[in-house]
Amino acid sequence: MSDIESRLAGLEREVGRLRDERDIMQLIASYGPAVDTLSADETAALWAADGVYDFGGEPLSGAAAVGRLVDLPGHRDYVARGCAHVMALPVVDVDGDTATATGYSRVYAGTGDGWKVERVSANHWQLVRTPEGWRVRHRVNRPLDGSPGARGVLGRAFERGGPT
Amino acid sequence: MSDIESRLAGLEREVGRLRDERDIMQLIASYGPAVDTLSADETAALWAADGVYDFGGEPLSGAAAVGRLVDLPGHRDYVARGCAHVMALPVVDVDGDTATATGYSRVYAGTGDGWKVERVSANHWQLVRTPEGWRVRHRVNRPLDGSPGARGVLGRAFERGGPT
Amino acid sequence: MSDIESRLAGLEREVGRLRDERDIMQLIASYGPAVDTLSADETAALWAADGVYDFGGEPLSGAAAVGRLVDLPGHRDYVARGCAHVMALPVVDVDGDTATATGYSRVYAGTGDGWKVERVSANHWQLVRTPEGWRVRHRVNRPLDGSPGARGVLGRAFERGGPT
Repeated sequence: MSDIESRLAGLEREVGRLRDERDIMQLIASYGPAVDTLSADETAALWAADGVYDFGGEPLSGAAAVGRLVDLPGHRDYVARGCAHVMALPVVDVDGDTATATGYSRVYAGTGDGWKVERVSANHWQLVRTPEGWRVRHRVNRPLDGSPGARGVLGRAFERGGPT
Repeated sequence: MSDIESRLAGLEREVGRLRDERDIMQLIASYGPAVDTLSADETAALWAADGVYDFGGEPLSGAAAVGRLVDLPGHRDYVARGCAHVMALPVVDVDGDTATATGYSRVYAGTGDGWKVERVSANHWQLVRTPEGWRVRHRVNRPLDGSPGARGVLGRAFERGGPT
Repeated sequence: MSDIESRLAGLEREVGRLRDERDIMQLIASYGPAVDTLSADETAALWAADGVYDFGGEPLSGAAAVGRLVDLPGHRDYVARGCAHVMALPVVDVDGDTATATGYSRVYAGTGDGWKVERVSANHWQLVRTPEGWRVRHRVNRPLDGSPGARGVLGRAFERGGPT
């Protein structure tokens, strides 16, 4: 029985990690649909109550404030033209009840004759397990414009040594 | 024994869901390679026999009809220029033998001097488990050109309440 | 007991495959952050010691040589402008201790007024399980410029029959 017990425990650990990674990927994949449909509530729901979104300038602090980004004039203009905030598959690292994810995002905005790549950014997400599921505690987004700061955000993919 | 039985059953349920999500992601990831290699058969094979693809205009009805989209003049022209139909990581929701997936797609087409973003769309996929695996029952694709219809497609990501 | 044994063994097999696929996806997702931060070491660490990267021209042979691609003048120029090497979700096929992955990659480079899509490519990855984890044994990358060769790379997604 102890062999069965240890195999069950090992499977539960592995499956728990796969589920956490899946939940985090789905959380990140939900960001674009939330903001591109101008849904303040769905956007806010991705963040922890005291979560922060720092995309340059003054960081938005608290889930409700993050949700209100859909009302920023620049964002409204993007959506009126036709807009897609697309997250690439991130590098994810789960450690108990916290996790990080590092990866690219792109904003495509309509021009009337196709779409322009308006923004290509490095993102580092800090995530936290809450009673309601994984939520964003802190996200930093910096445009990949050649500045060392944006490369520094991207380099956080390797803080724990990268994939094993 | 009943504890082991219930833990085994729980694991089988969780692993089954992870496998379903993986299969659905892989199905969606196969769409681009199928159409960009002009493979009517591989494209048709992703759809259920009576599946539908609605990308504006008259929907294509039945897997064979969907497969023949690779012979549309506009598609042939894209492929001659160099073409990539790239699906972003979707929000996936499995419910027994059916599932939905909602996310972005982009068409990049060669210009001779790089690639132009020809189309950025919202997609909602309805999927069904068949004896041969998951297949597409219905896919709707609408360009994100600022119209409310495309945003409505994207908003279906939250029909079941989004990620948990 | 034999029923429990066979269910445990089945779960271990399934979970092992899901874990392999996850590790391979994470390996591929790490490529962009490695090269876009000019990290020769992180780039080399993704390849097997005798792995090859063939992106046209003379293939780079050996992990150390692959890592040195970050010092190529063209790459340095991209990074100075602001650069993102973004991999799309690939079609992955694991077979014991080897695997393949087929999918798209894109290079976005800064223009000072947004980002240009500099390269859209088909990729076929051959991967191998090593004592340190999954590594790249061979990667081929060809720009999707309308040439049959690039379509051939993409068509390798269907060599094993595609998703099941």
